[in-house]
Amino acid sequence: METIRTEVRKRGWLGWAIFGGTMLVVFGLGLLASVITERRAEGAFSYVPQVSLSQFESRNEVWGQNFPKQFQSYYQTADTSFASKYGGSATVDMLEHEPEMVVVWAGYAFSKDYKQGRGHYYAVEDVYQSLRTGGPKHAEDGPQSSTCWTCKSPDVPRLMNEMGVEEFYKGKWAGKGHEVVNPIGCADCHDADNMNLRITRPALIEAYQRMGKDIQKATHQEMRSLVCAQCHVEYHFKPEGNYLNFPWDKGLTVENMEEYYDQIQHKDWLHPLSKTPMLKAQHPDWELYQSGIHAQRGVSCADCHMPYKSEGGQKFTDHKLQSPLANMNNSCQVCHRESEGNLLKNVYERQDKVQEGKKDLLKLLARLHIEAKHAWDIGATEAEMAPILTLIRHAQWRWDFVAASHGGPFHAPLESSRIISTGLHKAQDARVKLARVLAAHGYNQEVPMPDISTKAKAQAYIGLDVEKMKEEKKEFLQTVLPEWLKKAQAKELTWRK
Amino acid sequence: METIRTEVRKRGWLGWAIFGGTMLVVFGLGLLASVITERRAEGAFSYVPQVSLSQFESRNEVWGQNFPKQFQSYYQTADTSFASKYGGSATVDMLEHEPEMVVVWAGYAFSKDYKQGRGHYYAVEDVYQSLRTGGPKHAEDGPQSSTCWTCKSPDVPRLMNEMGVEEFYKGKWAGKGHEVVNPIGCADCHDADNMNLRITRPALIEAYQRMGKDIQKATHQEMRSLVCAQCHVEYHFKPEGNYLNFPWDKGLTVENMEEYYDQIQHKDWLHPLSKTPMLKAQHPDWELYQSGIHAQRGVSCADCHMPYKSEGGQKFTDHKLQSPLANMNNSCQVCHRESEGNLLKNVYERQDKVQEGKKDLLKLLARLHIEAKHAWDIGATEAEMAPILTLIRHAQWRWDFVAASHGGPFHAPLESSRIISTGLHKAQDARVKLARVLAAHGYNQEVPMPDISTKAKAQAYIGLDVEKMKEEKKEFLQTVLPEWLKKAQAKELTWRK
Repeated sequence: METIRTEVRKRGWLGWAIFGGTMLVVFGLGLLASVITERRAEGAFSYVPQVSLSQFESRNEVWGQNFPKQFQSYYQTADTSFASKYGGSATVDMLEHEPEMVVVWAGYAFSKDYKQGRGHYYAVEDVYQSLRTGGPKHAEDGPQSSTCWTCKSPDVPRLMNEMGVEEFYKGKWAGKGHEVVNPIGCADCHDADNMNLRITRPALIEAYQRMGKDIQKATHQEMRSLVCAQCHVEYHFKPEGNYLNFPWDKGLTVENMEEYYDQIQHKDWLHPLSKTPMLKAQHPDWELYQSGIHAQRGVSCADCHMPYKSEGGQKFTDHKLQSPLANMNNSCQVCHRESEGNLLKNVYERQDKVQEGKKDLLKLLARLHIEAKHAWDIGATEAEMAPILTLIRHAQWRWDFVAASHGGPFHAPLESSRIISTGLHKAQDARVKLARVLAAHGYNQEVPMPDISTKAKAQAYIGLDVEKMKEEKKEFLQTVLPEWLKKAQAKELTWRK
Repeated sequence: METIRTEVRKRGWLGWAIFGGTMLVVFGLGLLASVITERRAEGAFSYVPQVSLSQFESRNEVWGQNFPKQFQSYYQTADTSFASKYGGSATVDMLEHEPEMVVVWAGYAFSKDYKQGRGHYYAVEDVYQSLRTGGPKHAEDGPQSSTCWTCKSPDVPRLMNEMGVEEFYKGKWAGKGHEVVNPIGCADCHDADNMNLRITRPALIEAYQRMGKDIQKATHQEMRSLVCAQCHVEYHFKPEGNYLNFPWDKGLTVENMEEYYDQIQHKDWLHPLSKTPMLKAQHPDWELYQSGIHAQRGVSCADCHMPYKSEGGQKFTDHKLQSPLANMNNSCQVCHRESEGNLLKNVYERQDKVQEGKKDLLKLLARLHIEAKHAWDIGATEAEMAPILTLIRHAQWRWDFVAASHGGPFHAPLESSRIISTGLHKAQDARVKLARVLAAHGYNQEVPMPDISTKAKAQAYIGLDVEKMKEEKKEFLQTVLPEWLKKAQAKELTWRK
């Protein structure tokens, strides 16, 4: 009896402590359950389909009814405040920034107008405004082909489905202006049935096939980059029917693609000063990213450019595609436990180190075209110039590969630097050879450079009539464009609530 | 009564569970305490001083009596199996590997002999063997100065203490052969009183002072790199008294040091072919590492090259200084959760990308010296050649900065690549100018290159009598060296048990 009593006394407080602790845990579990239920409810509410979607629904706003959070964040690609915050503007005039670009692109549309792109929201708008698309007066007029629309809009998969891929690429850019009206959006990357990521552009699927790979077998994480690789890659138009093609048959490096282009003797244009059959690199973003450490560690485009965000208790992919530098806490800092200041410094340092050689190489290239023109002018022969032109072609291809690849100097700093190195080597080889050709024709000194210190001066030097181009553009915007939009609205291609 | 009984029954098993659990925890704690005591005992045993050490004890073996684990790991720097494992040899003949080096270093000792270094254990032995030190016959003979000993031995702080720093630097290398006999070791980096890290070489302290920094205020983590920076840095000998000096007054970048050297019009030698006043970069390892991400994240030299290891329950710093690639699980993998294979691939990729431009640049430099010689031969003037020689000087400085920096392409891949890029640019600028000078003197074609495809051919081209050098070395090893060692033993400078 007494023993039992003592036992109870002895075990007394321990028992109560256990009891109290258990109570606390149970209460905590109750709270957790309540929070989970609440968030689930919210999640469920967000995903109740409002409308039934077609696979070819090109109006982003219609998708937005079912997926308001994703849509609203996508709509924020209209925001250009980040560029302004860092002292730039959303549409930096690259030709003003480095006027030598005008000279190296002489004879090609980029010498007319080249501005830093804005968000996906402006994909269609900006292409109306660019002097590169000119001022077409009718459906068969203007400098650009229909293929140029390929990456601008979810109206493209719709049209390709309606008319066939080859037919879509045919004709002029102006021929489809009344059909392509919604900026890059939902249908470009998503399956309407289940929101899975999907590839809508045939060029990527075809390039994968030629590399012996089946893109259907890509993992979800790979797809989080591959949907971007539909457009953010190097491409060219085949001469027959302007068919869009990715030059990856020999591999993804700058040398692989150069070899491909050389073998099919492809040129994007003939340079009017140096007479070089030129290549224009077209943002090989995905390819260059492949050789960087982020890709090697399995980090996808979306991981940094569309990181997860939480809103009202719901976690979703932020569709405000932007520089991760504008959103470092959700992108970089998920993995890197460093201060924002330190990380920014690291990024800028990488960019600056690549930029240095890139600027030098651009200057050399401008000089080369001008020196080569001088050589032709004083009687250089085709035979003398041939090896020099090959070097110019290859050197400029290298410069452009890095210059055109958005973020390349960050995505793959060392590969970018290597590419620039080989470009510098080749450019200067060309200059050594040119010096000898010039001397052989009696000109043994530095070729004087014209004043190309501003965009206007450089454009005047290559003989561009900018005022005329602006006039034509103005007329296009005032007469042709409103007609396009009227037709599109009549066909209910654009959104009206 | 019944209530109490029920209470006891109710609380019964909970109470026993708690009791049992507590028993287990207490048992575990007992075990832990036993292990700790055991390890402490072992630790204490290891650190019982056996001998009393002087600050200038240069015999590593004497220190080893007090610190057997550290000493024994240090002794393993004699191990050269890692190099062989990766298909190399511990003493790769760099001149055989890239014979252009013979040409670019013509007139300088490195054109005679340049082998990849072995471990610290061989620091003195290898310097006896190198053809660079020649075959001095007496104390005032031979090509190298006493300053060359500075980084080879803990006998150096002893001698500097005995005779003064300036006096130590004076005279010939052969003048101190009987005094400098122990290879790089304990006294070079440690304070004998408390084993703290300490700086024993005045050049580093002085360079810090001139940069307005007090090296005494360095943290322990900084010291884990700074003890290495006593030797693994860029240096030059001042013409007055061969005083050792680090060229950091304007900063640590390749451009900063170039500006410093240009301003004091320093040249390491005059190139006999091109007549260029040359700079020899001397392993700027620490400087280049500073611009890499490991240094920026606070990782010290010792963290990777001397990671912690455990032996017999005791954790200590592994004094087998070596490539982290030979010990990746203790070095890289402490931070990087990647497979050894992946990490190796990442390292080699970085090195290869820098190597590519570096090889190209070396070829251009060899060509430049030969082209410049041709220009002089056909009557080029000082005025014509001056700007070309400056470009050659600066281009080769850049190549050598990367080539001489152990591990630079890994420590700072992007900065290494940037340096090579600027080197390529300058080298080719020189070639363009040379082409014009050559043409002006009637020679308007590629200058033919001699056969420099092997070390022997390249050495023959620059007029080296290698057989004679080898003979002299043989005689030195057979006659002079044994005398040095006899004297050192008599003075008890070397260890005998």
